[in-house]
Amino acid sequence: MAHSKNGCVATLVVKILKLRTNKTTARQGSRFNQHAVTTAYSVAAKYDESFSGEWMLDPDKGIATLHASEGLPHLTVPMKTMLGCISVAPPGEEQYRATDLGVFGGNLDYNDNVQGTILYFPVFHPGALLGFGDVHAAMGDGEVVGTGLETSANVSFTVDVIKGYATPQVRAETKDYLISFGVAGSVPESIQLATAQLADWVKKDYKLNDSEIALVFGDVLKYEIAELVDPHFDVVAKVPKSALATLK
Amino acid sequence: MAHSKNGCVATLVVKILKLRTNKTTARQGSRFNQHAVTTAYSVAAKYDESFSGEWMLDPDKGIATLHASEGLPHLTVPMKTMLGCISVAPPGEEQYRATDLGVFGGNLDYNDNVQGTILYFPVFHPGALLGFGDVHAAMGDGEVVGTGLETSANVSFTVDVIKGYATPQVRAETKDYLISFGVAGSVPESIQLATAQLADWVKKDYKLNDSEIALVFGDVLKYEIAELVDPHFDVVAKVPKSALATLK
Amino acid sequence: MAHSKNGCVATLVVKILKLRTNKTTARQGSRFNQHAVTTAYSVAAKYDESFSGEWMLDPDKGIATLHASEGLPHLTVPMKTMLGCISVAPPGEEQYRATDLGVFGGNLDYNDNVQGTILYFPVFHPGALLGFGDVHAAMGDGEVVGTGLETSANVSFTVDVIKGYATPQVRAETKDYLISFGVAGSVPESIQLATAQLADWVKKDYKLNDSEIALVFGDVLKYEIAELVDPHFDVVAKVPKSALATLK
Amino acid sequence: MAHSKNGCVATLVVKILKLRTNKTTARQGSRFNQHAVTTAYSVAAKYDESFSGEWMLDPDKGIATLHASEGLPHLTVPMKTMLGCISVAPPGEEQYRATDLGVFGGNLDYNDNVQGTILYFPVFHPGALLGFGDVHAAMGDGEVVGTGLETSANVSFTVDVIKGYATPQVRAETKDYLISFGVAGSVPESIQLATAQLADWVKKDYKLNDSEIALVFGDVLKYEIAELVDPHFDVVAKVPKSALATLK
Repeated sequence: MAHSKNGCVATLVVKILKLRTNKTTARQGSRFNQHAVTTAYSVAAKYDESFSGEWMLDPDKGIATLHASEGLPHLTVPMKTMLGCISVAPPGEEQYRATDLGVFGGNLDYNDNVQGTILYFPVFHPGALLGFGDVHAAMGDGEVVGTGLETSANVSFTVDVIKGYATPQVRAETKDYLISFGVAGSVPESIQLATAQLADWVKKDYKLNDSEIALVFGDVLKYEIAELVDPHFDVVAKVPKSALATLK
Repeated sequence: MAHSKNGCVATLVVKILKLRTNKTTARQGSRFNQHAVTTAYSVAAKYDESFSGEWMLDPDKGIATLHASEGLPHLTVPMKTMLGCISVAPPGEEQYRATDLGVFGGNLDYNDNVQGTILYFPVFHPGALLGFGDVHAAMGDGEVVGTGLETSANVSFTVDVIKGYATPQVRAETKDYLISFGVAGSVPESIQLATAQLADWVKKDYKLNDSEIALVFGDVLKYEIAELVDPHFDVVAKVPKSALATLK
Repeated sequence: MAHSKNGCVATLVVKILKLRTNKTTARQGSRFNQHAVTTAYSVAAKYDESFSGEWMLDPDKGIATLHASEGLPHLTVPMKTMLGCISVAPPGEEQYRATDLGVFGGNLDYNDNVQGTILYFPVFHPGALLGFGDVHAAMGDGEVVGTGLETSANVSFTVDVIKGYATPQVRAETKDYLISFGVAGSVPESIQLATAQLADWVKKDYKLNDSEIALVFGDVLKYEIAELVDPHFDVVAKVPKSALATLK
Repeated sequence: MAHSKNGCVATLVVKILKLRTNKTTARQGSRFNQHAVTTAYSVAAKYDESFSGEWMLDPDKGIATLHASEGLPHLTVPMKTMLGCISVAPPGEEQYRATDLGVFGGNLDYNDNVQGTILYFPVFHPGALLGFGDVHAAMGDGEVVGTGLETSANVSFTVDVIKGYATPQVRAETKDYLISFGVAGSVPESIQLATAQLADWVKKDYKLNDSEIALVFGDVLKYEIAELVDPHFDVVAKVPKSALATLK
């Protein structure tokens, strides 16, 4: 269980109230990360050194439009502005670079960390020391090219504290889902962590035994591969609130 | 490229027209597979030997209801009837057990192999030798308890042949997505295969270069973890047709 | 436990008495397999298409000498002639290609499957159906270039049967070590299988409890990475007989 | 390339001259780490809570003897005293806990980091800031029970500096081998790093092209699994000096 230095046990609750881009442009990478494609694909790929992934953003219409290239004369994608990084200070005396992630959050790069999402953090130090950034106007799963549509945003949020309870690691909640982040050194371990953390959470809150939680997850569990390219991998396990609503 | 024994090059196209359960019950497992949770979770779990995952199915209402247990007195989930297995005969002289999967399809356990989905198979032998089964009334991602809601169904489908072109491995298409199955011995390799196969497919069909396909996937690619528990793993990479529609 | 079709329970014991190359040449690959090096290495590598890995063998002196190349004018390595493949027929109705491996043995590519080594196989079918081949005059760990020094040999061996006991999977014994092969779809799983199988074996033979076997392995266990390039991976766990000698 | 803060480029060379235990006892764990055995093994294991892994050390005879347990009345193993941890300060502003490891060394837990071994470190900060500890009187591969025979030692060593050249990451040399440490978040990535780093090293020193280095490694490369249980994994790739001696 997380204890801050002064012994208090608490969970920091952050709700992203508003997240709106404040620039008209974004930049994006255009090479696959090694973890996203086979080695054979990487060896054969002929990337265009002069290719520039520049986008124009129209947050009123919710549309991003690529500066035309030969093969992509008019690509548009829906904007879904997200926070790539959000964290409290990590446990102990450790320091992390902005690209890293862990039980404290960090570079989770989850494309549903958007307006309306609530995040729960363990508190390891007095004041918790919340930080965030790395705004993407849109991003596919896995951040397969090493970036999203990198831009900046104005962020409004509320912060609350649950005293006497410390979530063991960062987790989240949207309108429809309870969400667990599995952060580990490999995707298989990220999957195992994400599922086990979510099972522990739901089992406790809904007073289920091990057979019951396994059965429920066997029906309704969803996985998302959030992050393939950073020092640690991030797999999301989530369970729909609609299914949990029938449990009580 | 796949060649049948008599040298013909072809792709088998199977559209699932109708998939409707024909039994009123289903059975489901209730222990997590070792790949779905941490070892610590598996060691600590106290499964109830007498727990029985029996469901009643109501396909008219599209609802499955669990026979009550203490912690789950009235669990209901929406039915989404799927084919766990669908395949052509594998290449060469190889034989596979029904639990296995590969470029020929097989136990893909993808919970979007449902009514309306179209599958494309390489043809390795005269007649292709299509087979299917393993009906699930519903199933979460990854088949984390080793089963879905196992039942049976009436299936209507159409079969078509594309001559002169052989898809390198099984793939699929729904109303909204182009879908690639990455079948390999580990999840990281399944991810790499799924992405690379989908990239090769879209690159060719939309005449994109390597930088362009990487950029598009960086925005809109989605992953799903279809299968964690069989002799091979199955990760789905998919791209929305809506994004591709702006390419032409 | 392995049962042959007619219900008999048995282990096939094969001792390689003599293994001597019968050709004066061998051929070898000269590109790293994707599992042996990083993607960055593979992308940067400039392999010489005209490079030819041809060796002259001198089994009397036990030396292999490379046909000179510019950078390798006089490379010689000690010969250590090994059997790349040795197997019984796999269980059930399955068929395998010669490149595959499993509980039945097969393409284990272990560079200590040499003269003097004893292998133990489960018997799945009447007659066991022993087969072998794929002679390498020498090979590094992991078969990192996809081949050893490929040649052929005369082989003398004895075959024996242990009735009433079936080894759960292929294992081996040299003058100095008890050896377990972990064959799986990824290296981490191969490691886990190899260790667990060896622990089960030694625990039973030496009447140790779980704490005792863990302690012994914590002191003296050795791993070898036998095979990185085939459809399944092969990691060897082994324990020195000298340590076990002090147990009785 | 590693640059210290003041811009100097250098490699720190540490030779372990003498490493001799200075206590008569050592303690050792006796439960398998989850990465060393299958989940099924961990679930079935019945560890003895009262089991105590206490050893008596006799450095004159080079023998460690276990305090007798029922199943292990007189276990003795040869001592091979090693340094579990040895490192310089990590790059940038990062801080690491003593259990971690990386390009800077750290908890490499390599059982050949013994008397006579020479280690090469990149210099990231003025003075390099060498540190070491975590003495094991003996340890099997992988540190499968989470410890070796933990004790303490007197250490004599020499320190030298190579100016104008910075090794990209920690590496080592014994009487017989050139040694590369692959430190990563999973064993497959550790293997790939270890091989690629060693290939880059030997290729440069012996002026080999990519085909030549691949061929040489295909014959003589050895792997060792040094560390399975820490925040990062550590696989060693090594090449015998005897083979390299024929290259010049």
